[in-house]
Amino acid sequence: MEKIETLHAGNFRIIQDTEKFRFGIDAVLLADFASAKLSPKTSHVVDLCTGNGIVPLLMTAKLLERRELHAQAQGETPPKKPQETALQSVRFTGVEIQHDAVDMARRSVALNNLQNSIEIIECDIKCVFSVLQKNCADVVTVNPPYMPFAHGKKCPSTDLAIARHEMLCNLEDVVVAAAGLLNSNGLFYMIHRPERLAEIMESLVRNRLEPKRLRFIHPYADAAPTMVLIEAKKCAAHGLVVEKPLVVYSGKKIYSPEMEQIYGRAEPKCE
Amino acid sequence: MEKIETLHAGNFRIIQDTEKFRFGIDAVLLADFASAKLSPKTSHVVDLCTGNGIVPLLMTAKLLERRELHAQAQGETPPKKPQETALQSVRFTGVEIQHDAVDMARRSVALNNLQNSIEIIECDIKCVFSVLQKNCADVVTVNPPYMPFAHGKKCPSTDLAIARHEMLCNLEDVVVAAAGLLNSNGLFYMIHRPERLAEIMESLVRNRLEPKRLRFIHPYADAAPTMVLIEAKKCAAHGLVVEKPLVVYSGKKIYSPEMEQIYGRAEPKCE
Repeated sequence: MEKIETLHAGNFRIIQDTEKFRFGIDAVLLADFASAKLSPKTSHVVDLCTGNGIVPLLMTAKLLERRELHAQAQGETPPKKPQETALQSVRFTGVEIQHDAVDMARRSVALNNLQNSIEIIECDIKCVFSVLQKNCADVVTVNPPYMPFAHGKKCPSTDLAIARHEMLCNLEDVVVAAAGLLNSNGLFYMIHRPERLAEIMESLVRNRLEPKRLRFIHPYADAAPTMVLIEAKKCAAHGLVVEKPLVVYSGKKIYSPEMEQIYGRAEPKCE
Repeated sequence: MEKIETLHAGNFRIIQDTEKFRFGIDAVLLADFASAKLSPKTSHVVDLCTGNGIVPLLMTAKLLERRELHAQAQGETPPKKPQETALQSVRFTGVEIQHDAVDMARRSVALNNLQNSIEIIECDIKCVFSVLQKNCADVVTVNPPYMPFAHGKKCPSTDLAIARHEMLCNLEDVVVAAAGLLNSNGLFYMIHRPERLAEIMESLVRNRLEPKRLRFIHPYADAAPTMVLIEAKKCAAHGLVVEKPLVVYSGKKIYSPEMEQIYGRAEPKCE
């Protein structure tokens, strides 16, 4: 069933589906991790496997927030319709293979009047160069299917199964698409499961995306990580920074202060 | 200057040098990490870049401890000279290129009467197959030089510089030697710096040593890791476990309980 939810971030609204295209904590963490390094030079961000478009929406909200803060620091009044004025220099392209998700993402973009900033393309990432040029992106983000195909139980809904299992694209497809889309020194951001890290690192290095930053997400401070955020840079030299752990809960059902700061702004409110 | 120090572990004694061949926390963590998986089937362990032989000595002590505990659990009296009786089935070979370190390691082995269990070989690991057969080892351990050659300041002593910088062997040499020495399903254990992790993973996967276990060492719970323990398995399938963080200090100069348990047993006492 479809619902319109309001994100804390930018007060944007997003169309979700309670049974399939619904974003999770991973999309929020990815958008936060990738947004931290957006520079004034960033002009084109491509989000692969974009689903209902949550990552471009959240990153747009982050960008607005930063620009408003900057304007306030300069003593200016923030523009009345920041969606229209502040984003002229950054374009987002979301790429998604599932028609229903594409439709939902496009409606969310329109709902927030962001058609000039965010474009949603219906496309298999294995054929992405038929619609996007090579080296066209400064940043590529992706929250891909985590599970290898034919591994574990499939989800009851096929749409959800495609989003979670490597049924229509695998890790290598994602890395090859990202490496081709990025310009030299372009940045790649992915969230994934720690158990796939060796494959990820090997695939990144082989495709000239040098891992530069890792951050593990731990449910509790003394627990093993359940997710990992990865930043890689195209054609860069060796040298990786593993950052301090990102801890989700500081107590039973209590978010850590950092998590509250990241997630609070994105937590959806049903309308 | 040479000193004889007594290890908590097994009450073994080790010859150290205050200026060069002196073991650090990394060797202790590596020996602990690798020892946990020694099985009754383990018959030959090779330690590359063995220095003054600390890793084989600590692993031998761990093995004795486990056997004594096992004997006690069975209601038997532990043998009086466990060095001679309990180790018949496991051989350790330490490989070291620096003559003075080899000499020191051999004297430490003799001091503990462990000549039947630990052999120290003077050899460049790039030529290791001239003295050891391919596929001869069940386990290979290594605490290699961490720093790429021509990176950062060199240490004042050449011996120390060789132990810390990749002057005589680099990461690839270590991985190639380990992959060749191990039999199928053999286990590789290394401690290294997180900033080299991408290179390590890529090299391991390319040489068919599949990363299976990672553990990051953090000085404090909320700090970035400064070391990483790696377990890889020869010819294994994909699938990595990133374990909960190993935290060194729980307060200023206060070891965490886990660290106290690992390090307390190995902390040297000067004679």
